[in-house]
Amino acid sequence: MTSAPSVSSSITVRLQVEARPTAVSELTTAIEQTGGIVSALDVTASGHERISVDVTVATRGESHAAEIVEALRVLHGVAVDRVSDRTFLLHLGGKLQIESKVPIRNRDDLSMIYTPGVARVCEAIAARPEDARRLTIKRNTIAVVTDGSAVLGLGDIGPLASLPVMEGKAALFKRFADIDAFPIALDTQDVDEIVRTVKAVAPVFAGINLEDISAPRCFEIERRLRAELDIPVFHDDQHGTAIVALAALTNALKVVGKDLAEVRIVLSGAGAAGTAVLKLLLAAGAHDVVVADVDGVIHPDRPGLSPALAWTAISTNPRHVSGTLVEALAGADVFIGVSAPGILTGDDVATMAPDSIVFAMANPEPEVDPVDAAQHAAIVGTGRSDFANQINNVLAFPGVFRGLLDAQSHKITDTMLLAAARALASTIHEDQLNPTYIVPSVFNPEVTTVVAAAVEAAARAEEAASPVV
Amino acid sequence: MTSAPSVSSSITVRLQVEARPTAVSELTTAIEQTGGIVSALDVTASGHERISVDVTVATRGESHAAEIVEALRVLHGVAVDRVSDRTFLLHLGGKLQIESKVPIRNRDDLSMIYTPGVARVCEAIAARPEDARRLTIKRNTIAVVTDGSAVLGLGDIGPLASLPVMEGKAALFKRFADIDAFPIALDTQDVDEIVRTVKAVAPVFAGINLEDISAPRCFEIERRLRAELDIPVFHDDQHGTAIVALAALTNALKVVGKDLAEVRIVLSGAGAAGTAVLKLLLAAGAHDVVVADVDGVIHPDRPGLSPALAWTAISTNPRHVSGTLVEALAGADVFIGVSAPGILTGDDVATMAPDSIVFAMANPEPEVDPVDAAQHAAIVGTGRSDFANQINNVLAFPGVFRGLLDAQSHKITDTMLLAAARALASTIHEDQLNPTYIVPSVFNPEVTTVVAAAVEAAARAEEAASPVV
Repeated sequence: MTSAPSVSSSITVRLQVEARPTAVSELTTAIEQTGGIVSALDVTASGHERISVDVTVATRGESHAAEIVEALRVLHGVAVDRVSDRTFLLHLGGKLQIESKVPIRNRDDLSMIYTPGVARVCEAIAARPEDARRLTIKRNTIAVVTDGSAVLGLGDIGPLASLPVMEGKAALFKRFADIDAFPIALDTQDVDEIVRTVKAVAPVFAGINLEDISAPRCFEIERRLRAELDIPVFHDDQHGTAIVALAALTNALKVVGKDLAEVRIVLSGAGAAGTAVLKLLLAAGAHDVVVADVDGVIHPDRPGLSPALAWTAISTNPRHVSGTLVEALAGADVFIGVSAPGILTGDDVATMAPDSIVFAMANPEPEVDPVDAAQHAAIVGTGRSDFANQINNVLAFPGVFRGLLDAQSHKITDTMLLAAARALASTIHEDQLNPTYIVPSVFNPEVTTVVAAAVEAAARAEEAASPVV
Repeated sequence: MTSAPSVSSSITVRLQVEARPTAVSELTTAIEQTGGIVSALDVTASGHERISVDVTVATRGESHAAEIVEALRVLHGVAVDRVSDRTFLLHLGGKLQIESKVPIRNRDDLSMIYTPGVARVCEAIAARPEDARRLTIKRNTIAVVTDGSAVLGLGDIGPLASLPVMEGKAALFKRFADIDAFPIALDTQDVDEIVRTVKAVAPVFAGINLEDISAPRCFEIERRLRAELDIPVFHDDQHGTAIVALAALTNALKVVGKDLAEVRIVLSGAGAAGTAVLKLLLAAGAHDVVVADVDGVIHPDRPGLSPALAWTAISTNPRHVSGTLVEALAGADVFIGVSAPGILTGDDVATMAPDSIVFAMANPEPEVDPVDAAQHAAIVGTGRSDFANQINNVLAFPGVFRGLLDAQSHKITDTMLLAAARALASTIHEDQLNPTYIVPSVFNPEVTTVVAAAVEAAARAEEAASPVV
């Protein structure tokens, strides 16, 4: 798989160029010959002898960018003034700001939003704590919590270096669901300490989105926080992935005319995401799921199973398959990968059942080259934005939390996750479905609304069935 | 002291009124006879027989508001539709929102602010952690931290009920210093737990503003956080009060032509604020300070002194005064109260030295009626906005943190607090000084700028003298 130039690795180069008729075309030709893609070109100043040009170029990454700059530097009559990285420019000073919603123009304003007027609001909440959801930012505020232990594909880079991701996540919450999200990047990776800290800072929040916390610690952290807090706790790497994968699979099965309860599914990956995908598949009615990890298929007789894998072994694999992932794939209807890059070939996909479905979601490089997979599978999805059927968590987490906040829900349950997956699948109507369109665009404004409404309804129904006293 | 109607206790009453020529004047007369002050009156709808009127009235509080509504209700031809409390209306949904600073319009934007582009920014910070101040919200973000144990004059109302104050504080940080502040209201009052929690959430913040934490726990929490964190920690109830009091005293002494090193100062209150005021007075060069608490003057022979009071006893009181606060006041040049309402009378103030200065800062009710005190003292200041010389922390904390953030300071020291106090005092020029104008208005835009510049300079000087490695 050749990586294409990407806007996410764009540079803007400021050049001084001799004012000759061919000057600009020489520039763009040099860039294109080096494999860069010019996305913008502005003449920012002009004189009799020289012009100043800003040219923005999508590159394949840092070394490619350096190559392009060098190709410009050696051009006759061209001087490179400055090279800026667009992604870094966007990040200067961070991606979030906290604004006051109330005007503070004079002493009267001050006396209402601060002392002495604010005291009456405090007293009202002290008397009726549930009024905090009405009179404070708790109504619409969640925490994006990480310990920096499993950030993107970068691994354990710590809390400070994780901040750009957490800020980005908070920005997405705002953009897609009008939720106020604040990044809590923890300077500890101890499970007890994380649980204690999140509980201690919880009062201002109406929900906790756990993010990029490594397995197996993330399971215990989520379990304990759910038990001990009265607000919903959602680990996006697990449940966000599971919701979108199930929604995509629901629609893909419609396209190929198969039934979830009947199909053979092979799931590669038994970490945080894999476990959550598995649980949601089972909750949705899947029966024949075979899970494989780096040591091959998981079955009860495999030696050295951890408690989590032992649960997987007895909850899956009804046909008692053993062996390698590739062996298990033969005859399967569905492959779902949340594991590692390049572990399958097109030939492996060819061994699957007719009309097979392949979701290769390892990021940025999928389990199998999607172009090769598409030679043999009926439907291919990945986590990447440059192929059809991007299985992207952004389709789930904004709507899920919007629904939870709107319901003022105290918890999140599998029923709500299933409702979210079904709602997400429903945003593509029967007459729109086809092998290259099983999930909607993240910019489809209906997505958040539909998912939120489904989660809110499920949350209200559960709250009515077992109210929190 | 009679309390006047206040905008902070405003109500808006929606009325249906018969369309008679005198109808509106009957309304306003009834309100004024009940002691309310009409601040706005809008006819929101009109018909042949009735008009709909919204009238906004400043009241003396809830029971007075009820009285006013009742007076309206009994008027002939008037029906009360709805009563709203303006302060509560302003608080609906809370006072802060978190906004994205970056546009998210399409996949290209997504690929830069989130995956895959964000990974390069994370890697840059992992390689050079100090770049977090450049590439994340850490550059301009602080925490407003409380445990809800000593909120305003309301006492231990807990973290949820404290939120309106913490949000208000954050709104003030934005309004007066363009700082992004987020409320961290802790669900624990255990000192170890508070220290651990604040340390754990510290990575995203460039400063910690402690707020409304009761003494003596606040001393240990601040001391330990300062020792263990590499960002400045400032307890506003202590140091904000101390800075503004010292600035006000500096200017008051100029007005009466006395010298800080020479004057006799009586300080009422040995809690969080009192201790901080004392320390800053001593650091600024005061020599003759007598401190009194609820048990009278503090001196080394007083039985049962706590460690903190024992320090106060040996650090103050050079003339070995003992007895009551009132006894100590005789002959004093300066009274500073950060203690309890109504503990002094005008007659007590009369026993002070000529040209005495009285800062009665207990809130909302001062240590002595400021009208009575002004009969005998040359200069009177309070914490209230309805008298001259309001000694208000808003004059200090925004500029202090602005300066700390601009210097990227890792700590805060007494030198910086002194610089802040001197800068604040300097915002009133010699030719503007008079007994009713010793501190500037909080809406004077120069205040934050001047205080910030002084703190930044002091912080840079200290960082240069002893750089953090």
